[in-house]
Amino acid sequence: MSDIADILSREVPAVNRYLEEAAASLNPLVQPVVRHVLLAGGKRLRPLLTILVARAFGYERDDIYPLACSLEFLHSATLLHDDIVDGAPMRRGRESAHMRFGTTHTILAGDVLLALANRLVAEYDNPELTRILSESLLQTATGEILEIAHLRDTDLPLETYLSIITGKTAYLIQASCHCGAVLAGADARLSQAAKDLGTNCGIAFQLVDDALDYTSPSTVSGKPTGGDLKEGKVTLPLILYLADQPFEARRRLAEDFRQDQLSEEDIEYLRGNIVAGGYAEKTREMAATYLGKAQAALASFPPSSEADLISQVLAPMLGRDK
Amino acid sequence: MSDIADILSREVPAVNRYLEEAAASLNPLVQPVVRHVLLAGGKRLRPLLTILVARAFGYERDDIYPLACSLEFLHSATLLHDDIVDGAPMRRGRESAHMRFGTTHTILAGDVLLALANRLVAEYDNPELTRILSESLLQTATGEILEIAHLRDTDLPLETYLSIITGKTAYLIQASCHCGAVLAGADARLSQAAKDLGTNCGIAFQLVDDALDYTSPSTVSGKPTGGDLKEGKVTLPLILYLADQPFEARRRLAEDFRQDQLSEEDIEYLRGNIVAGGYAEKTREMAATYLGKAQAALASFPPSSEADLISQVLAPMLGRDK
Repeated sequence: MSDIADILSREVPAVNRYLEEAAASLNPLVQPVVRHVLLAGGKRLRPLLTILVARAFGYERDDIYPLACSLEFLHSATLLHDDIVDGAPMRRGRESAHMRFGTTHTILAGDVLLALANRLVAEYDNPELTRILSESLLQTATGEILEIAHLRDTDLPLETYLSIITGKTAYLIQASCHCGAVLAGADARLSQAAKDLGTNCGIAFQLVDDALDYTSPSTVSGKPTGGDLKEGKVTLPLILYLADQPFEARRRLAEDFRQDQLSEEDIEYLRGNIVAGGYAEKTREMAATYLGKAQAALASFPPSSEADLISQVLAPMLGRDK
Repeated sequence: MSDIADILSREVPAVNRYLEEAAASLNPLVQPVVRHVLLAGGKRLRPLLTILVARAFGYERDDIYPLACSLEFLHSATLLHDDIVDGAPMRRGRESAHMRFGTTHTILAGDVLLALANRLVAEYDNPELTRILSESLLQTATGEILEIAHLRDTDLPLETYLSIITGKTAYLIQASCHCGAVLAGADARLSQAAKDLGTNCGIAFQLVDDALDYTSPSTVSGKPTGGDLKEGKVTLPLILYLADQPFEARRRLAEDFRQDQLSEEDIEYLRGNIVAGGYAEKTREMAATYLGKAQAALASFPPSSEADLISQVLAPMLGRDK
């Protein structure tokens, strides 16, 4: 156990220090936007996964931080652009960047962070890492586009919903784990285990997010409760609820939702029904299944303190309230 | 001369074919936006420079098109984001992408193109190329940010104006030339000549653009005449004009411009004065100086049909009317 406390107390501050340094190297004009999104907290899940996977596979060198942080920069860039895309007024309990700094600065700061992420990875002289990074941006943006294409689509099949969350969330978490494996020179079997860990952990993470959107008071989550319903996003709690409704009730609700005809009270009533019917809870149960798959992938890692720590980082994900 | 005609008739269609193919490989949901910006014409200056520089330095292989086109993809991505940033209603004589497809799809399609550009370059297993590409995106976005920071800044020093256009335009053209040199395995001296060619050609290109903004009817340029003045962009014609005004007239005009107090008629009157005073022409003269520097850099290339062709591509840049 002291091993694990030791790892965390070493790696998290090292990540934060590197993020600070790299942000400080950017043009002063973008720094306020970058700091707003980057240094406002966040779990550092992605860089930690890169570091822990690499260490679990025997990589001991200290040059890992730029790589690990490039995934946090990429993540922050997509957050900046997504908040504009979603018209989201809040992020992590604060005004989102485009509300504070305007669309212009936010788009460009996102581009600067994307460029920075790619530049940091290029320094490793390992094209496999660059490929993983660009593929993850491609998949993230494509997942977002797919999500928008299916706004208010009450016939959204479960498979398409899973494609959306795999693209927009899980792919970058998969990339974080995969980069750690590639840096450590892991063989094909271990690389695949790292990817499986990331994908399943990412899907579980988004499923919990989608459940929290229905249940978590905005004072805790930092986002408006029921935001997805208001924005017309069809996520698992709604999909499961609709599937259980009698034909006629379902048809009417689907039509109103599609045409954005629900009042604020209607939406709050619907949200209450979905939670009371246990559909947010069922979403968490599905997250638990994916988390089980992530733990199974982790079980094929060689034994190490870092593998134990990954397992301990994953466990509370299910119970989290924001 | 037949050599040159031969090169052009081979390379331009090859570039267009590859752009088409790569666009077709993207998710169908982003294709309309991508095609709108990518296949609407454009001079293919960037990919042509990559190809011609590489060929001029003896590179004969056919695997050059993804690299060359990655620079066009990167350019298109920045156009998509810039048009949102500028609130530009038109691009190349057509409605700009965000007006037709909305901000959301346009931001995300830009991100997809950025990712595609990086992925294509990663395939070359040459981290130097990845570094050049990410640095050029960083510089382009930073140049844009600098431009916005100096909107309506009538005290803009010439050096800062040159930094802005070097960042937002010349850097990517420099990168196009530099990538060609690196792919061809050019030595440090030739690589530097390629970069000098690109930087100076890029600055000249933007100077001509900034002159055309004052002189070219929108029916020819595909953009509103005097658009920069309307948007509050301080470019060389205005800088030169202001410098020649008597103190009091200058102070009053500067104040009105800074506070966006000029009516449409005022702006049109000002534009007319600037053109009549020869300040657009003086801007073209400065472009000619930079074009001379580009030709000087080219003169240090080993003799080849491709170097001749680059020279011939550059020459009409000064006289262009759109």
